[in-house]
Amino acid sequence: MEKFAVIVAGGSGTRMGHETPKQFLPVNGEPVLIHTVRAFCHAFQDMNIIVVLPAAHMARGIQLIKDHFPGLPVRFVEGGKTRFDSVKNGISLAGDPSVIFVHDAVRCLVSPALIRACYDMALEKGSAIPVVALKDSIRKIVPGGSIVVNREEFRAVQTPQTFRSEILLKAFTQPYQESFTDEATVVEYAGGRVELVPGEETNIKITYPADLMLAEQFLRSNDLIA
Amino acid sequence: MEKFAVIVAGGSGTRMGHETPKQFLPVNGEPVLIHTVRAFCHAFQDMNIIVVLPAAHMARGIQLIKDHFPGLPVRFVEGGKTRFDSVKNGISLAGDPSVIFVHDAVRCLVSPALIRACYDMALEKGSAIPVVALKDSIRKIVPGGSIVVNREEFRAVQTPQTFRSEILLKAFTQPYQESFTDEATVVEYAGGRVELVPGEETNIKITYPADLMLAEQFLRSNDLIA
Repeated sequence: MEKFAVIVAGGSGTRMGHETPKQFLPVNGEPVLIHTVRAFCHAFQDMNIIVVLPAAHMARGIQLIKDHFPGLPVRFVEGGKTRFDSVKNGISLAGDPSVIFVHDAVRCLVSPALIRACYDMALEKGSAIPVVALKDSIRKIVPGGSIVVNREEFRAVQTPQTFRSEILLKAFTQPYQESFTDEATVVEYAGGRVELVPGEETNIKITYPADLMLAEQFLRSNDLIA
Repeated sequence: MEKFAVIVAGGSGTRMGHETPKQFLPVNGEPVLIHTVRAFCHAFQDMNIIVVLPAAHMARGIQLIKDHFPGLPVRFVEGGKTRFDSVKNGISLAGDPSVIFVHDAVRCLVSPALIRACYDMALEKGSAIPVVALKDSIRKIVPGGSIVVNREEFRAVQTPQTFRSEILLKAFTQPYQESFTDEATVVEYAGGRVELVPGEETNIKITYPADLMLAEQFLRSNDLIA
């Protein structure tokens, strides 16, 4: 089956205290985005890469990819106002039938093994959403205070959110809803169901400066093993 | 007001793939537990430290503390079968009236500033539970699948869970319930309410090997600043 990785690098990076968007910040000497693209290339040799970039950073992103992966046929598309719009733009370049991976560019530690596991599940069941257990107890904010909830009943959601193209492309023909916080919610709103697969503790989203440090450490320990 | 930090080091460390319990693993050349005790000593000069240790590691823990904090009047008590039992043993050594901090030994990056914020809130309102926003989307596991929930309505719970002694000591006279997952749930079961305070992104629980790396990075960047 054809494979399309839609790598969504829409963020402006304001939470990091940097001018540079998070996807361009260096981790072990290479930008976050480069690590992410590499993971998808390593997962499958016939992976098609589509990178969604904010208009303001398009030229920079294209140059980066060309410098690091000369000859790799990566396609680029501009992001939209919401994640929904950005993903919609990205998947519009994907083939059909195919398996489409929608992945946060800032999850640069995703392993090829997880990408392959998502592929297998999506091929079999139509979808694959990687999730991990919550490490901390959680409380729900309610009027006047908060209540404890059983964290065993919850999972933290990661990417790549992976789907057979016919399911994802059809779901994205719906008009945008505020409840569309990720691809799984779009597919569910269209009447689809999503399958969970075990994610990875290391598959973190680079959100805060501390996450960059953590990513460096992870990558460094991988280098030592490799 | 008198202040008692009950530092609970009950874990056997099986998730880390080490023989050594997590609280004894080195971070920047010093055991996790030492960093934790130091944060509480830095928060308030008149802090009383009570360390709860598993029986099998009592001698080691006592020696470590004596080596790193010669002359500091730390008290030690054996942990119990559950966290509830361990905390109960720890708080039995606390004075009354006082403010009691119950803290996971493996949260060694807690800042003195957070400890002081918890103190202020507990003094005023009776309790203080540090919480942070969830970084990832979450889904709830339900029969036959999972549903998305609004993560904005949830918070991840940290420690030190901090209480005025009369509230905490009374709550811990209740018989143990399975729903007692932390001190907040014990106090609520006794009819008390808990106040939330903003926690810290860096106040992580050392659970996986990756967390040790992250802790090292955090402490190293603090050293550079100091």
